[in-house]
Order: sequence, then C-alpha cells, then structure tokens
Amino acid sequence: MGSSEFTEKKVVFEEKIANLQERLQHMGSLVEEAIARSIAALKDQDLNLARMVIEGDEIINRLELEIEEKCLEIIATQQPMAKDLRRVATLFKMINDLERMGDYATSIAKITIRIADQPLIKPLVDIPRMAVLSQKMVKQALDAYVREDVVLAVAVGQDDDEVDKLLGQIIRELLTIMMENPKTITQATQLMFVGRWLERIADHATNIAEEVVFLVTGEKPKLND
Amino acid sequence: MGSSEFTEKKVVFEEKIANLQERLQHMGSLVEEAIARSIAALKDQDLNLARMVIEGDEIINRLELEIEEKCLEIIATQQPMAKDLRRVATLFKMINDLERMGDYATSIAKITIRIADQPLIKPLVDIPRMAVLSQKMVKQALDAYVREDVVLAVAVGQDDDEVDKLLGQIIRELLTIMMENPKTITQATQLMFVGRWLERIADHATNIAEEVVFLVTGEKPKLND
Repeated sequence: MGSSEFTEKKVVFEEKIANLQERLQHMGSLVEEAIARSIAALKDQDLNLARMVIEGDEIINRLELEIEEKCLEIIATQQPMAKDLRRVATLFKMINDLERMGDYATSIAKITIRIADQPLIKPLVDIPRMAVLSQKMVKQALDAYVREDVVLAVAVGQDDDEVDKLLGQIIRELLTIMMENPKTITQATQLMFVGRWLERIADHATNIAEEVVFLVTGEKPKLND
Repeated sequence: MGSSEFTEKKVVFEEKIANLQERLQHMGSLVEEAIARSIAALKDQDLNLARMVIEGDEIINRLELEIEEKCLEIIATQQPMAKDLRRVATLFKMINDLERMGDYATSIAKITIRIADQPLIKPLVDIPRMAVLSQKMVKQALDAYVREDVVLAVAVGQDDDEVDKLLGQIIRELLTIMMENPKTITQATQLMFVGRWLERIADHATNIAEEVVFLVTGEKPKLND
C-alpha cells in the first residue's frame, strides 16, 4: 500500500471511530440518566419515573446492538491492526458494560415499584450519594477512553473504593434497622439490593477504566481494592 | 483470491477457531467447577474450599485475557468476514460473561468466609438446586455455541425462568426466618445475596444463549421471561 493510500485509510478510520465514540457517549449519557432517574424515583416513590427507566432500557439495548454492528463493520471494512483494532475491541466491550448498567438501573426501578405500597423506612441519604458517585464514574470512564487518559481512568478506580465503603455503611445501617424492627425487613432487604446494584454499576465503570488502562499501556491493572 | 487459496484460508480459520473453542470450553469447565465448589463450600462451611475458589478466579481471569488476545489475533491475521467475523465476536463476548460468572462464584466464596463464625441457620436445599441448574446452563450455553444449536440455546432460557422461581422461593423463605428470629438477619441477608449471585450467573448463561441465537439466526431474542 502506498503511503498516501495508507494515510487516507487512516483518516477514514479515524472518522469512523470518532462517529462511534459519539454514539458511545450518547449511550453513556442515557445510562447516567437512567441511574439518576432510578434513584430519584426510589427516593420520591415516583412510579411514573420508575416506569420511564424501565421503558428507556429498550433504547439502551438497541443502541448496544447498533454500536456493536458498527464495530464489526469497521473491523470488516477497515481491517484495523494492532492498537487501532484494540481501540475498536475496547469500545465493543465497553458497550456491553453500559448495557449491563442499564439493566441494573432497571432492577432498581422495579424495586421502587415493588415497595411502593408503603412509605420508606428511612430517608435515603447514602444511596443517592452512591448513585451520584457511580454516575460520575461512568462519565469519567468514557471520557478516559475517548481521551486515552490513564490518570482519569485510575481516578475511577479510586471512586470505586469509596462506593464500596458507602455500600458497607448502607448495609450495616439497614441491618440495624431490621433488627430493631422486624416489620422493616422486607423493604430493608430490597434497599440492600439497591445498594448492591449501584455497586455493580460502579464495578462496570471500573471495568471500563481498566480496559482503558490496558488499551493505553498494555497492562491490565486492578484499579479498585 | 483464487478459489483454492480461499479454501486454504478457510481451513486455517476453522482450525484456529476450533482451537479457540477448546480454550473456551476449558474456561467454561473451570467456571462450572467454581460455581459447584463455591456452593459446596457454603453448604459444608468449608473454608479451604472457599479459598480455592477465590484463588482459582485468577486463572479464569488470565484465560479471559489469553482468549481475548487470540480473538484479536485471528481477526488481524485471518480477517474473517460476515458470519465468521461474528463467530469470533460472539466468542469474544462470551468469555466476558464467563469471567463475570467466576467473579460471582468468588463473591459467594467470600460470603462463606464471612459467615463462618456461626452454624448455618438452615440446611441449604434450594440454593444448591439453583447452583446445579446454573452450572447446567453454563455448559449448555457453551455447547449451543460450539454446535450452533438454537434449540439448545432456547432451553437455556427456559432453565433461567426456573432459576428465577427458585430465587423467589429462597427469598420468601429467608424473609420468614428473619421475621421469626431477628438473630438470623445478618446471615439470612448474606444467603439472599448468594441467591442473587446465582441468579446473575444464570443470567450470564442466558446472555450467551441469546448471543448464540443471534449468531445463527440474526435475530436477538429475549430468552427468559
């Protein structure tokens, strides 16, 4: 292949991957929104908002399929090599993490609907805090990918440790409430699951961050404790 | 490309993918073993076995990386098109599901260690049943991929509905125990998480089965209710 032909091919590839990254960030913003809404719905016992999260998950799932198709198309038509192939492969993996996060937001919305027949056993503080942190992690993990920013990726892992600490607090507090008043048991166990799902969301964000570090450095680190 | 050159390329590709599938099944059998061991350890409160699961997870993680590398190598060197490219992409996704299952088995093993200071609040029946079913689903999902067997893939989805039913039973039973005796709360919530992790494992197996249906038919079905 001549050098100008090579350059041209590279330009086309970069355009295509920029387009993919735009879609990825769109998917990411939908996932962030789903997380925020699922927790707002839980906090305010807002069933309509919970239903919106569940319905919106379809769009996230479709986006995953679309971006997946685009990834395979780029591989087939552009035949990227080495680092460029890995960039596409990483994106291919990331959309799966995002899709899973959407599933967890949906699980949280379903819990909101399930426990809607009685008021909350306590005002929610740490759970919304976990949600805000998880959302930030999602955003930063995607930014780290687009900018190939290892430092930002490592920061995502640090937030994950914070999320784990918050989960520990939440579980201990709920256990205490349950022991003092067994009538709270059903709802408290559901709230524990909410905490767990947020932790899984943060875990997927950390996964993405680890992928980014691997993409840039070739080393697969463990970013959280 | 001449037709004999084409045939030769196809033969090399098929050899390489057969080799990959062997590794995939090896990884699958390690995951099945991890699930079985994590539940045996829980049932018998066998801390050594629990630790083996946790240590063994490293091997599963390494295998994922190795197979991932091989997938990218095949894409780069063989440049498979259309269906063949999708076969590699599907395998690439499946190993991520398997790796996650390994993580869940590890989470179960950690719970075993966490609750080891007191005897079990009840003999475990439904949890081991869920584990056997999940293991079977993992095996069948991988077989369905290798044989491109849609009927087998659909059967995996049916088992997933059974797993969900078992989880419902487990949670109801544990809630009853907790309400009758608040001293059981800490352990009972941990056992609920075990049920949830098994459900997630079954969910990943269903994911794989859905991928297989997509690979063969081009339709992305929802295999569980």
